[in-house]
Amino acid sequence: MKLTISRNELNEAVQHVAKAVSARTTIPILSGIKIETSAQGVTLTASDTDISIQSFIPLETADKTIVTIHRSGSVVLPAKFFVEIVRKLPNEEVHLEVGERFQTQITSGAIDIQLVGLDPEEFPVLPVLEEDQVFSIPGDLLKSMIRQTVFAVTTNESTPILTGVLWSLQDGVFKFVATDRHRLATCKIQTDVPEQLRFSNVVISGKTLNELSKIIPDQNTLVDIVVADNQVLFKLGNVLFFTRMLDGTFPDTTKIIPTSFRTELILNTKALSDAIDRAYLLSREEKTNIVRLSTTESGGVEISSSSSELGRVQEQLSVSELRGDPLRIAFNSKYMLDVLKVVDSEKLFIGLTGAMSPIIIKPDHDNSLHLILPYRTTN
Amino acid sequence: MKLTISRNELNEAVQHVAKAVSARTTIPILSGIKIETSAQGVTLTASDTDISIQSFIPLETADKTIVTIHRSGSVVLPAKFFVEIVRKLPNEEVHLEVGERFQTQITSGAIDIQLVGLDPEEFPVLPVLEEDQVFSIPGDLLKSMIRQTVFAVTTNESTPILTGVLWSLQDGVFKFVATDRHRLATCKIQTDVPEQLRFSNVVISGKTLNELSKIIPDQNTLVDIVVADNQVLFKLGNVLFFTRMLDGTFPDTTKIIPTSFRTELILNTKALSDAIDRAYLLSREEKTNIVRLSTTESGGVEISSSSSELGRVQEQLSVSELRGDPLRIAFNSKYMLDVLKVVDSEKLFIGLTGAMSPIIIKPDHDNSLHLILPYRTTN
Repeated sequence: MKLTISRNELNEAVQHVAKAVSARTTIPILSGIKIETSAQGVTLTASDTDISIQSFIPLETADKTIVTIHRSGSVVLPAKFFVEIVRKLPNEEVHLEVGERFQTQITSGAIDIQLVGLDPEEFPVLPVLEEDQVFSIPGDLLKSMIRQTVFAVTTNESTPILTGVLWSLQDGVFKFVATDRHRLATCKIQTDVPEQLRFSNVVISGKTLNELSKIIPDQNTLVDIVVADNQVLFKLGNVLFFTRMLDGTFPDTTKIIPTSFRTELILNTKALSDAIDRAYLLSREEKTNIVRLSTTESGGVEISSSSSELGRVQEQLSVSELRGDPLRIAFNSKYMLDVLKVVDSEKLFIGLTGAMSPIIIKPDHDNSLHLILPYRTTN
Repeated sequence: MKLTISRNELNEAVQHVAKAVSARTTIPILSGIKIETSAQGVTLTASDTDISIQSFIPLETADKTIVTIHRSGSVVLPAKFFVEIVRKLPNEEVHLEVGERFQTQITSGAIDIQLVGLDPEEFPVLPVLEEDQVFSIPGDLLKSMIRQTVFAVTTNESTPILTGVLWSLQDGVFKFVATDRHRLATCKIQTDVPEQLRFSNVVISGKTLNELSKIIPDQNTLVDIVVADNQVLFKLGNVLFFTRMLDGTFPDTTKIIPTSFRTELILNTKALSDAIDRAYLLSREEKTNIVRLSTTESGGVEISSSSSELGRVQEQLSVSELRGDPLRIAFNSKYMLDVLKVVDSEKLFIGLTGAMSPIIIKPDHDNSLHLILPYRTTN
């Protein structure tokens, strides 16, 4: 393989695929990035077996030549060094030539690098997916749905299925659910996908979704999603992002969401968030992060927390609406702050059915719903 | 004690003194901030016994009232929580009232905080320094001198004196020296301080200087420096910063600095820095970070490094001037990058006396000089 390539495009492709290189793999070939020529351009691939990312660099764009292939071929180069040196090459033009035993020479300006390359035949082959289940959604919407839910996955590896987010598509409704058994985050959108396209129990690792989120461009471009047997493929322009689904059955969470409430509140999101943040400062000194919310006789709410060592914080908050019975409930303030960070409306709804029953938090639209189990205190 | 105080001024003072609160002290009183009223205003103090910071809040500025003291007194409040809650108080006006057994009530807007305070009598008393050795230098100059030298102190606690920077003032020349035995950084300025004001062997901990640097304002204000028996006091407007000197005698480093060279180079600082940065990427995979600099037959230099596992990097660099014998020298590239980061001139001088002798790096003025010992390789 021998080629001349534009540094900026090479760098962009390298940074994309680098996200799939595992930092501590025991399989040497997986610590590399595969570079391969074709008649259309150059393809870079990296994989940690759970996720694989492929980035394609075309020979030219509308106004300039990006790659000139002098001799076709392929090689695997050590990712750790390659990723950083490409970013720092002095010249806009980079020459890459693979010699005997995959010894690779990279030159750019006055710099000359000899890299020990690896045999591309050893690199894992990416799956070829059946593309009958394909649909598109805008990238910023997908990013937002990930953000609304991914914080609620568990980090506890003893329940692997809950380290992922459940995806389903039914009657055109695309829905995400995540839970760690103490809280639940859900988010859905109505798509114009044909009704016959449907799936359920597709569970994708939260870590993978965070990585995916990073490479979705901020501009409003469409992401094609291909759902196959046990793999999901995301097509983002010249970048392909493959991930395995998690094995197992995601628990049915529909039954634990109450539909009617004994106490209903409508509050200003920022005011509530600020007050809980202040109470959290004290509560985190105790290990439980417990903060209390109580309705007051004057028709507002009080947010409070206490620490035996430091003292206590009490704050009065006015509400836009308060319906139903007086109530006092305790919860993990960290969980509540996680929810308040992603609520995207100026006001929010809180629904309560008792001091021992789930707390429901919703923005002023029906696209997302959050649930937090209360903390069972004695007073 | 009972007072009403402006949140912004309180917050600013609290953030300043917070830098002297030790995160893991075993002495409870030192985990607090002392607040004390006087006829002129309110003074906040924190101390970890090595450094102490005092910040004064006056009753009023030219255009507004900042503090109203309803009842004089003092208290010590738990720093960890107090520092963060003050930043997040909802209202511009804060009321603070100390009750029985130092129980302290803080109110601001609709928030009401009860804090367990401590007895201010237990708080260490700050030293009163003899002010016969006082001089002033511009804050940005002091900051720059710290930055030029502090990176070269050792982190190895087995030679405590070398964890500090040596300060001296002789014939109006104010000089800093730091070394970890592998490298040396020096920096000096000519002041207009009277000749009779002189000191030597004042050694101040590098950590302390980093903290001091953070609270020196960016505007070009004068810092008053008071050098007393075993303490140094920095006066920065309303903030007083006390530090103990390190015990011991700083080694004499003047003899190891060569004054004539066999090879002299003048190079572009950024070009050299970029080239060494690229060579460092490969060299850090080996533990030694070794990079080589060699003069070339064409009258330039070559920067190179190699890794048995990954390969090698070679880069040609043109020089502005090259005088003397051809030479090849190896060094720790991390040390060289530390120096190149603080060299503040477009071109720099490198002086060499042999492959086993110290490397001297200087900017194009005489205010600073850096020395790095070479790495003794077999080839």
